[in-house]
Amino acid sequence: MGLNLTQKIFKEHLVSGELVPGKEVSIKIDQTLTQDATGTMSYLQFEALGLDRVKTELSVSYVDHNMLQTGFENADDHRYLQTVAARYGIVFSRPGNGICHQVHLERFGKPGKTMLGSDSHTPTNGGLGMIAIGAGGLDVALAMGGEPFYLSMPKVVLVKLTGKLQPFVSAKDIILELLRRLTVKGGVNRIFEYGGEGVSSLSVPERSTITNMGAELGATTSIFPSDEKTRQYLKAQGREQDYRPYAADADASYDEVVEIDLNTLEPLIAQPHSPDNVVKVRDIKGIPVSQVAIGSCTNSSYKDLMGISAVMTGKTVHPNVSLGFSPGSRQTLEMISQNGVLANLITSGARLLESACGPCIGMGFAPPSGGVSVRTFNRNFEGRSGTKDAKVYLASPEVAAACAITGVITDPRDLGVPFKSVDIPEKYVLDDRMFIFPESDGSKVEIVRGPNIKPLPTRDRIANKISGKVLLKVGDNITTDHIMPAGAKVLPLRSNVPAISQYVFEAIDPTFPKRAKEEGGGFIVGGTNYGQGSSREHAALAPMYLGVKGVITKAFARIHLANLINFGILPLTFVNEADYDKIDANDTLELDTTHLEKKPLTLRNVTKGIDIPVTHALTYRDLEIVKAGGTLAYVKSRSKK
Amino acid sequence: MGLNLTQKIFKEHLVSGELVPGKEVSIKIDQTLTQDATGTMSYLQFEALGLDRVKTELSVSYVDHNMLQTGFENADDHRYLQTVAARYGIVFSRPGNGICHQVHLERFGKPGKTMLGSDSHTPTNGGLGMIAIGAGGLDVALAMGGEPFYLSMPKVVLVKLTGKLQPFVSAKDIILELLRRLTVKGGVNRIFEYGGEGVSSLSVPERSTITNMGAELGATTSIFPSDEKTRQYLKAQGREQDYRPYAADADASYDEVVEIDLNTLEPLIAQPHSPDNVVKVRDIKGIPVSQVAIGSCTNSSYKDLMGISAVMTGKTVHPNVSLGFSPGSRQTLEMISQNGVLANLITSGARLLESACGPCIGMGFAPPSGGVSVRTFNRNFEGRSGTKDAKVYLASPEVAAACAITGVITDPRDLGVPFKSVDIPEKYVLDDRMFIFPESDGSKVEIVRGPNIKPLPTRDRIANKISGKVLLKVGDNITTDHIMPAGAKVLPLRSNVPAISQYVFEAIDPTFPKRAKEEGGGFIVGGTNYGQGSSREHAALAPMYLGVKGVITKAFARIHLANLINFGILPLTFVNEADYDKIDANDTLELDTTHLEKKPLTLRNVTKGIDIPVTHALTYRDLEIVKAGGTLAYVKSRSKK
Repeated sequence: MGLNLTQKIFKEHLVSGELVPGKEVSIKIDQTLTQDATGTMSYLQFEALGLDRVKTELSVSYVDHNMLQTGFENADDHRYLQTVAARYGIVFSRPGNGICHQVHLERFGKPGKTMLGSDSHTPTNGGLGMIAIGAGGLDVALAMGGEPFYLSMPKVVLVKLTGKLQPFVSAKDIILELLRRLTVKGGVNRIFEYGGEGVSSLSVPERSTITNMGAELGATTSIFPSDEKTRQYLKAQGREQDYRPYAADADASYDEVVEIDLNTLEPLIAQPHSPDNVVKVRDIKGIPVSQVAIGSCTNSSYKDLMGISAVMTGKTVHPNVSLGFSPGSRQTLEMISQNGVLANLITSGARLLESACGPCIGMGFAPPSGGVSVRTFNRNFEGRSGTKDAKVYLASPEVAAACAITGVITDPRDLGVPFKSVDIPEKYVLDDRMFIFPESDGSKVEIVRGPNIKPLPTRDRIANKISGKVLLKVGDNITTDHIMPAGAKVLPLRSNVPAISQYVFEAIDPTFPKRAKEEGGGFIVGGTNYGQGSSREHAALAPMYLGVKGVITKAFARIHLANLINFGILPLTFVNEADYDKIDANDTLELDTTHLEKKPLTLRNVTKGIDIPVTHALTYRDLEIVKAGGTLAYVKSRSKK
Repeated sequence: MGLNLTQKIFKEHLVSGELVPGKEVSIKIDQTLTQDATGTMSYLQFEALGLDRVKTELSVSYVDHNMLQTGFENADDHRYLQTVAARYGIVFSRPGNGICHQVHLERFGKPGKTMLGSDSHTPTNGGLGMIAIGAGGLDVALAMGGEPFYLSMPKVVLVKLTGKLQPFVSAKDIILELLRRLTVKGGVNRIFEYGGEGVSSLSVPERSTITNMGAELGATTSIFPSDEKTRQYLKAQGREQDYRPYAADADASYDEVVEIDLNTLEPLIAQPHSPDNVVKVRDIKGIPVSQVAIGSCTNSSYKDLMGISAVMTGKTVHPNVSLGFSPGSRQTLEMISQNGVLANLITSGARLLESACGPCIGMGFAPPSGGVSVRTFNRNFEGRSGTKDAKVYLASPEVAAACAITGVITDPRDLGVPFKSVDIPEKYVLDDRMFIFPESDGSKVEIVRGPNIKPLPTRDRIANKISGKVLLKVGDNITTDHIMPAGAKVLPLRSNVPAISQYVFEAIDPTFPKRAKEEGGGFIVGGTNYGQGSSREHAALAPMYLGVKGVITKAFARIHLANLINFGILPLTFVNEADYDKIDANDTLELDTTHLEKKPLTLRNVTKGIDIPVTHALTYRDLEIVKAGGTLAYVKSRSKK
């Protein structure tokens, strides 16, 4: 029997294991990317490995998150990133050059390659037919060091697209439809592989909008075949030589199949506060809108902005609406500034924000109190916008533009403007001057560290018995935003763990950091899909610093699970989900750790005097890591042997 | 004997008093402007007057300061400003439309008119031949209510310009030369009136760069004649009908005269941390630069950005430099986006920031630790950039562009690029869609107030004896940035006095607010030029809220003195400057306030057991205001009679 596309690329990169869902495999990583918010820590970790140069084919360091620069911290981080890149052979993308996933797609992504990125939306480059996976900064540091990437082999889901998108219906609506059907948990331990006749009508930027938001399904990654559309895109980017066709064999098999008929799809919108809370735009039309934001790694391509322009030209932004847009890359900004579209958007009253993540990560452009903000982004978690009681909706650029003009939620088909089909350009503007390519010998480069860049905290080897209080008990679908908030106040502290730790669980219980420190650490109890959302490893690193020893939940989100292991926090799940009710906050728990491999384990609730069976999905290697006090300690101890 | 230009416009607007330097006069105000950081408070004060509509010819409310929006506060303020403007007949300039002074110059400023603005750089519009004065938000509120503006008649200084600027020497160098000669105190109680043959070679935007930075001299305002250049500018703005010639009589007399020979002027630069610390660029060439920022109300016009482009086209920003630029207005942004200059700047690696004050007020783009930032702005006070140990230099756009390319401080004449003279365009792009003009009846408009908009604090009538501890003793040249910091963290609290008061004197003594509250208020002792810098009335309002009863200094800066009076804080000066040494922090002071008009007054230092003679420059009206507990209380009590 033939192979599907995922299996093909995994097979070409397999270091250990078998391609059987649920089994641990490890694969060679060709490329890495980091952004600045996770990157500083990732490079501190890479430095700790003591190597002279990265061992990947290509590693790129982007700056797109911390660009408001309201204090010295951001600019210091940029300087650290620039010098550490020059030192170790990493390409540095200067601030202003754009959002990592968009820029990588434009200039570096290659069909058939593997990539690990310290950002949960790394699967964006799956639109080019590569296996691109989001991971913690530490995993990326290890990949730069030449270590394979370990994961539990996911199921492969075929998403079969039939038909063709109708006017004003866009790629965003395809992924919103999947979210509607499968929810934010529907993709856990799965890779979504797109196929079917509908694929050939989608350009690479459209495919990348879809693979980008596969992250919101909880998927390991998403991938499109590499075909004529891929060649067309790479050629327009002056990179036809990077093209290789890649597709599933005709007789490939899949673990699951989902079908979407593009002909019948309509403009969709995700309501507050979850990307899967999806309805038809027409079903909620007329809700007054106070703000519209266009951009983010999901929908900020040249094609996206041209689409907006087609809707907005000659119109004025409604007086009650503030419209901000952030082009995804300097390439896009340059092109729309050359072809007049930028001038048109500005004329319409749009506010041009920097080419960066910006409002998507709460980095400015927060809505007013209780405001309704329609955004082309990928996440609408409560408070993520910077305004606690704002109501954020997610939709396509065309829907967002329609809302900006009318001041209420509007299906663009109801605007009465003619539909203008937008294709990718024959030739993108090519100018790589804002990359700094490393010299072949970086050993003389001085790495500049500002006062906000603090050494890595470490954890000792695990004790034979761990015990402590339940410091916090939370419900289902806790996001990494809950655990370790981002936003303009907190993000600048990413390279300063003692400082950032003071914000752990801030929105849920601001006393958590103080209590954790006072109690000498303890446990967290959670529901299902614990740790969904962004890949930020600080959601594990900061709790580790505060002394958290274990997290017991109904189920974990994949990247967060890996991060907990990486930082030596034991991630356990209930054998019986109902046992979640048998632990309360402040109960004292106890666990013998001498035989963690013998599942199920017995967790003692000392306060209630009961035993609770718990288990875990940790491999032998994972357990060795947790016992060593985290991956860095494990890798270093191993290399000493 | 003939009149100078200042006397002519004052005479046309005189309500009371004589045009004799040092005598109190009051003048009718034709126009007002506010920006958002001072505006919210100004409109709260206007509302307290209980009127139905503004009584000025034109009042405009701009949004240019608080645009990062890292929380709900900014967007809430924008909504308040928009609705309060519609309610009371004020033009609202939407966020993204540009910096108040630049936009006002383009669309509203008129020769021969008077304007009061709640921003210290309001004199920018003096470049159009109007008397434009910066004042506290309360003064602006009163002007909107039809009250005349009271001030002590300043001396009029003729700045006689001869010759013509040489290549790469710019208007910025004229005002830097004046600052070099006269210092930041040299303009106190003076109006600078420009004349001489050199005037006719300067365009309105160049003139406005000069009048703008007259604020840094401490001047009441600065003014250029209205001549053919003025007509040319107004015509290009589609406003030729607003043109009226205005000039001094041939036989006019002046209190003082300064001469500047433009032929011999060279590119200048102000070193950290004062705008008057001016040297020739060549004298400090070669200092490594980490950041360049182009923009602010001083140098962000179309002409300025065209000048930069002439230096930068085809070049790349030096790898060690981050270059940010903020066009002064949407008009400018639109024009450079249409003519390709924006694309060129982006291609060179410049980061396009929003059309707003931005980095000039510490609102983003903070330099790295210890970084050198060359800025086209008007102020380089320590810490104002958002980075405490950054070193900020002030220079012309041409110098800034040269530094961005070379990565070191560079005189553009040493670049070896040909000089390209840039004139203003024949026709600016005209599009007023981002103004919301008020309906003739606003009585039905609902004013929207977010939770950050708190009621105005008030002060009771003065007691017959005031006493208290010296809460703080400071030295010379204390700025309003020292008293009430701005920046990204503090500015969003401008409409919330209890919250913003927690930051008073933060950089000097962060315990001040707590101590002031605990002591039930007290006194501040300062040196000379106390309260220089920005016009922010919060530098008086917040200390008033904290209980400050009096400030005793060697001398006050003009706007801050007015603000202290406005908020019922007694501003006293030492009769003998040496007595400054007879008061220490924590001494207890006592003053009988029953006969404040009988100067000198006797200030009792209870702790040291000595009497110190103090005086003041307060008029009868000023004293009535201080006794009433501030201007608002005074105006309201008077209207009740």
